[in-house]
Amino acid sequence: MKPNLFLFIAVSAVAVLAHAQEAPLNWQPVAPGVWSARIGKPEAVDLLKTAGIQPKVDALNKLGKLAFPTSMKASVARLANGQTHLRLPLREGEQLFGLGLNFKNVLQRKRVFNLHADHYGGRDSGRTHAPVPFYVSSEGYGVLINSARYVTVYAGTGVRKDSAHPPKIKDRNTDRTWEAQPYSDAVEVLIPAAGVEVFLFAGRSAMEAVQRYNLYNGGGALPPKWGLGFTQRVPTKFTADEVRQEADAFEQHGFPLDFIGLEPGWQSRSYPGTFAWDKGRFPDPAGFVKEMLQRGIRLNLWLNPYVSPESPIYDAVKPYTGTHTVWNGLAPDFTLPQVQRAFKTFFAKEHLDLGISGYKIDEIDGYDQWLWPDVASFPSGLSGEQMRQIYGLLVQRQTADWFRARNQRTWGLVRGSNAGASALPYVIYNDYYDHRDFITALCNSSFLGVLWTPEVRASKTAEEWLRRMQSVCFSPLAMLNAWADGTKPWTFPEVEAQVKEVALLRMRLLPYIYTAFAQYHFEGKPPVRAMYLTEGFTASSQQQAGKLDSTANPYATALRQEVKDQFMLGDNLLVAPMFAGDKSRKVILPAGKWYDFYTGKLAGAGEIITVTPGLDQIPLFVRDGGIIPLIPAATRAPKHDDILPVEVRHYGESASRFALYDDDGETFDYERGAFTWTDLMASRDVNGSLQGKVELPQNARAVRYHDFKWVFMTKP
Amino acid sequence: MKPNLFLFIAVSAVAVLAHAQEAPLNWQPVAPGVWSARIGKPEAVDLLKTAGIQPKVDALNKLGKLAFPTSMKASVARLANGQTHLRLPLREGEQLFGLGLNFKNVLQRKRVFNLHADHYGGRDSGRTHAPVPFYVSSEGYGVLINSARYVTVYAGTGVRKDSAHPPKIKDRNTDRTWEAQPYSDAVEVLIPAAGVEVFLFAGRSAMEAVQRYNLYNGGGALPPKWGLGFTQRVPTKFTADEVRQEADAFEQHGFPLDFIGLEPGWQSRSYPGTFAWDKGRFPDPAGFVKEMLQRGIRLNLWLNPYVSPESPIYDAVKPYTGTHTVWNGLAPDFTLPQVQRAFKTFFAKEHLDLGISGYKIDEIDGYDQWLWPDVASFPSGLSGEQMRQIYGLLVQRQTADWFRARNQRTWGLVRGSNAGASALPYVIYNDYYDHRDFITALCNSSFLGVLWTPEVRASKTAEEWLRRMQSVCFSPLAMLNAWADGTKPWTFPEVEAQVKEVALLRMRLLPYIYTAFAQYHFEGKPPVRAMYLTEGFTASSQQQAGKLDSTANPYATALRQEVKDQFMLGDNLLVAPMFAGDKSRKVILPAGKWYDFYTGKLAGAGEIITVTPGLDQIPLFVRDGGIIPLIPAATRAPKHDDILPVEVRHYGESASRFALYDDDGETFDYERGAFTWTDLMASRDVNGSLQGKVELPQNARAVRYHDFKWVFMTKP
Repeated sequence: MKPNLFLFIAVSAVAVLAHAQEAPLNWQPVAPGVWSARIGKPEAVDLLKTAGIQPKVDALNKLGKLAFPTSMKASVARLANGQTHLRLPLREGEQLFGLGLNFKNVLQRKRVFNLHADHYGGRDSGRTHAPVPFYVSSEGYGVLINSARYVTVYAGTGVRKDSAHPPKIKDRNTDRTWEAQPYSDAVEVLIPAAGVEVFLFAGRSAMEAVQRYNLYNGGGALPPKWGLGFTQRVPTKFTADEVRQEADAFEQHGFPLDFIGLEPGWQSRSYPGTFAWDKGRFPDPAGFVKEMLQRGIRLNLWLNPYVSPESPIYDAVKPYTGTHTVWNGLAPDFTLPQVQRAFKTFFAKEHLDLGISGYKIDEIDGYDQWLWPDVASFPSGLSGEQMRQIYGLLVQRQTADWFRARNQRTWGLVRGSNAGASALPYVIYNDYYDHRDFITALCNSSFLGVLWTPEVRASKTAEEWLRRMQSVCFSPLAMLNAWADGTKPWTFPEVEAQVKEVALLRMRLLPYIYTAFAQYHFEGKPPVRAMYLTEGFTASSQQQAGKLDSTANPYATALRQEVKDQFMLGDNLLVAPMFAGDKSRKVILPAGKWYDFYTGKLAGAGEIITVTPGLDQIPLFVRDGGIIPLIPAATRAPKHDDILPVEVRHYGESASRFALYDDDGETFDYERGAFTWTDLMASRDVNGSLQGKVELPQNARAVRYHDFKWVFMTKP
Repeated sequence: MKPNLFLFIAVSAVAVLAHAQEAPLNWQPVAPGVWSARIGKPEAVDLLKTAGIQPKVDALNKLGKLAFPTSMKASVARLANGQTHLRLPLREGEQLFGLGLNFKNVLQRKRVFNLHADHYGGRDSGRTHAPVPFYVSSEGYGVLINSARYVTVYAGTGVRKDSAHPPKIKDRNTDRTWEAQPYSDAVEVLIPAAGVEVFLFAGRSAMEAVQRYNLYNGGGALPPKWGLGFTQRVPTKFTADEVRQEADAFEQHGFPLDFIGLEPGWQSRSYPGTFAWDKGRFPDPAGFVKEMLQRGIRLNLWLNPYVSPESPIYDAVKPYTGTHTVWNGLAPDFTLPQVQRAFKTFFAKEHLDLGISGYKIDEIDGYDQWLWPDVASFPSGLSGEQMRQIYGLLVQRQTADWFRARNQRTWGLVRGSNAGASALPYVIYNDYYDHRDFITALCNSSFLGVLWTPEVRASKTAEEWLRRMQSVCFSPLAMLNAWADGTKPWTFPEVEAQVKEVALLRMRLLPYIYTAFAQYHFEGKPPVRAMYLTEGFTASSQQQAGKLDSTANPYATALRQEVKDQFMLGDNLLVAPMFAGDKSRKVILPAGKWYDFYTGKLAGAGEIITVTPGLDQIPLFVRDGGIIPLIPAATRAPKHDDILPVEVRHYGESASRFALYDDDGETFDYERGAFTWTDLMASRDVNGSLQGKVELPQNARAVRYHDFKWVFMTKP
């Protein structure tokens, strides 16, 4: 009997391993309205630790306490075969947002994502530059899977046999309401690791959940003011002289320019790179950088982190690199202090000491055919998979720290990111180039604590050129990237005036945009916001029955209407980009009255309007009572000692106020209280007329704005 | 000291686990020219066991012994963090084929595949209906990863830092020969399991490696003769009367028809299905099936295996189903005898006993949004991932076994398959519908031991209709699938005659096509073959330098010329399909002289020709000495007692022979020797004229062909 009994026990043990029991998540409060649960043995390396988040406790306290969302108490986890499985409840009618920087859709319920750092490849599969494993519910909570693995999220697709809320069964033969995707009552998650940490962010709205997520990650990055000006990236093999001429040309055209990006050719070798100046194209880097700074133009250096044998740091980093090269360059293990030191020392001496203001960090998002494979490993013990998921965070954090140590803000471009990046001073870009999808990505970035730029590179027509330029001027980074095409803002002379006009409008709007970023930093509200994060906007979407088509839609999959081609910039400004070929477009106005930005006229109220703006303008709308401060048009962003007059525009009928943020725009002194909030208040006087009033803060002497001139845009 | 020492050992053990040493593979011979290696602890469930392969030892012996390929001795494996990593050498100039049923490309070197059962979604990522983890090298060997997991294959992409064959380092700034993908000297494989079995199939050519692969899997499936005739799938809600009328219409039009496929509406409920006849649409299934059989028309039943609560077998299978439903149907665990019995008993009684001849098994390939998620589990202990990879094999094998037990061949359609399927009597199809890509899939199927049909459903124009019909008639399954569109072969009256002509040509070619399948069965040579498997065809492909384009090709990725739009059917016939819109096309002729099938005229020799065939014909070419036997045109495939005259066509100048296969075309008696090979020989007489001779086999009385009439197509 004994051997058999033993066998029985052994078999049972295997069965238990394979079908481990589900257990409720053990949620523990970690901040007001924020809980975490640890399942199994979470891995040593995760996303938030890698990002080095420092929760903004004061701001979280200010947002206030909230009860744990009742519905989420039913969340369960299970460990099975080295994986962690989660099941998180989902109510009927609930909508989900987030789950990686997607370009096609903003409504993510009923979709599946394998979140995987990668070039975006034209479909929302989870393979993207920022595969952030975070979703936000329209019911006002967010869930973060804090794992540096390829996490698969079934966002309301699977239906369990034992579901307490089973969908209705229909006969496809005869029932026209049959659906390819019946109702699912759960988000299911597969983490390919024997443990994970999960966070839950509560909120009274989706926006508030996003705020808590961003504040827990340290609050949004506050750019230097120059980072919000216009930036031009020059062709890859430009010499110092050609860069000078480029700056001259911008001046001749009176076109804004705050920083120039140097592409691969600034290095003596690229792909793999040396990180050292090419002495042929840049014989005197120090003098060149200094000269440009004196002209008020900062410089940003392109790089990818794969080290050429000809790089001065090659020998120092070689022992601390992965098993596989990328484009023949070493792939540094940035978790190791030896690598960190080698980079910091060299980059400080060769770039930062010279006055370089930031970096564009390319190709850290992968692409299977040239990144290290998942079978790669790194000296720290990290696998290829883990390193791929966190590489973007690692390089952002380290480069950001170099600047922070100098009390100097930076603003850069990065191609790979992940959860926890809210406070990192980088904007994501890519090689994809669909204008509409670029706007969808802008919307999606707002759910994820990342920033995105719909950069302009080239266009087939003047119309497309102008439409793209109009869009990028209302994004976190107004950039022309001419690395391959050598384009200039005036490449299409027939729209030069209009391109310049919108670029100068952005410059005029800088106080407003900078305040939107301050909200990101202090309150966690993203500067660019999907409509679904806007008060008064309903998340409900109509589902259209799919039409059966044997080739295009054999399962007659239902289509959903999504609002993904308009967004909010800050609290007051609704941006509705135009796309080449379109003469008019629909704009969905949230509840309340909305006004045309340019004329102040009523545009509509909580309705869908159609606008025909002409080529010159990008449609912009302001909510009732919306206050927009503007400074005079200029080609450079304000410097720390500029004192500027402000035109304060008020729209609509309502009394209102706007808190205008300001600081030196360059240093981290704002973290130590060196900032001001100026209250711009519109109220009705005894005659019922609107009157503007400016209330300066206590530290009024620090305010860099003066001469406030109120303009009531909407005529009674 | 003790605790510290213990800690040290524990930490070391973890480190060893994380960075396990690489070890050479321990290859063991398993058949002549076939080796296997076991790494770690291979999982209990794998692909070949699931497929139930029975190696054709005699045929393997006949192919002969070969030495282990020298270059592959350097193969290594490593166990790391619950994964298995392989590295298999790759020489410069070597080309790779296979790695899942791909639709876009046939040259797989420099690509990455995550082999994952799924609908094909428009790109060759590894997500496909048959994610076969097998690759064939132009150097004459094949490698099979016998794993039921999502296997990732880096087919010559990764470059190791310590590579013995490092690529040359180039500066992208200045060197125009810089490549985005430098030379990699290895295929690397990631199996997400702590062990795997790997097979190596040697060969003097890529074809011979494929032959060994197919023979090891039991040899290719030999269809019943009727399976090679024409098949029509009728609209989903057709009644018995409408099916009768469909058969009548085929007779009126004189159009071939061997079997009709009934789509979901034959069942009382579908999605989920009952597997029971709908008594409204089919009031007398037994009588109906019998009547159709008497008319010489077999019936094939559509199904997917997800069980409706209204199915008679629901209660029997419920305890043995997965945690998740699919379209509200139970997902049976087909590895369990309880499920197997319930299905077999019911299907035998309700279908096979009535005379049903086969199945179309749909939607077992997945699609993340409606299949069970990977977090699902099954009562046998299999994970969702494993079950997804093998589901197609399980249902193919079980249904095939039901027919085999009756000594009755079947021929069906299946949407999901995997390695080990060579002997299973199923042809893969899907919802994708690109004509060119369908032909590429035909080419790719030949590397993988699977069959594929470029089924016709609908077309925008008569030209497209005809071109698709011409292609499908030279494929393993000549099918019109009218489930959604109600199309007929004569849907475009202006090309009805030409469609009929090509369908009848297929019927005439059946002895040749059947022989091609016999080669698949007895020799392992696939019936449809990529050009790269053809003797005299060079696998070398020119690489065209990619053109830099900031939006379309920012890395200036090189493009490769591939031959993927023409293929061989059997030994002698080269098929070069035409695509709608094209008036002419290029055809690459392998070494030696090639002749036009229709006229016998010389077409070219080892060269690229351009043909302008007109609408009526699909370009067909025969190699020098090629012999093609034809029978008279008929609307049904030959029955077991038909005695048919044969026209023997000879092409070109060379003396040659052709072994013509035959058997009863219905049973498995051929496995017990009941078959014939008739030698058709062309030789030159004393005057130098070609003469035909037929040498009957010893069992000459079993030969069903007579009255051989030689036609020398090429005039001297």
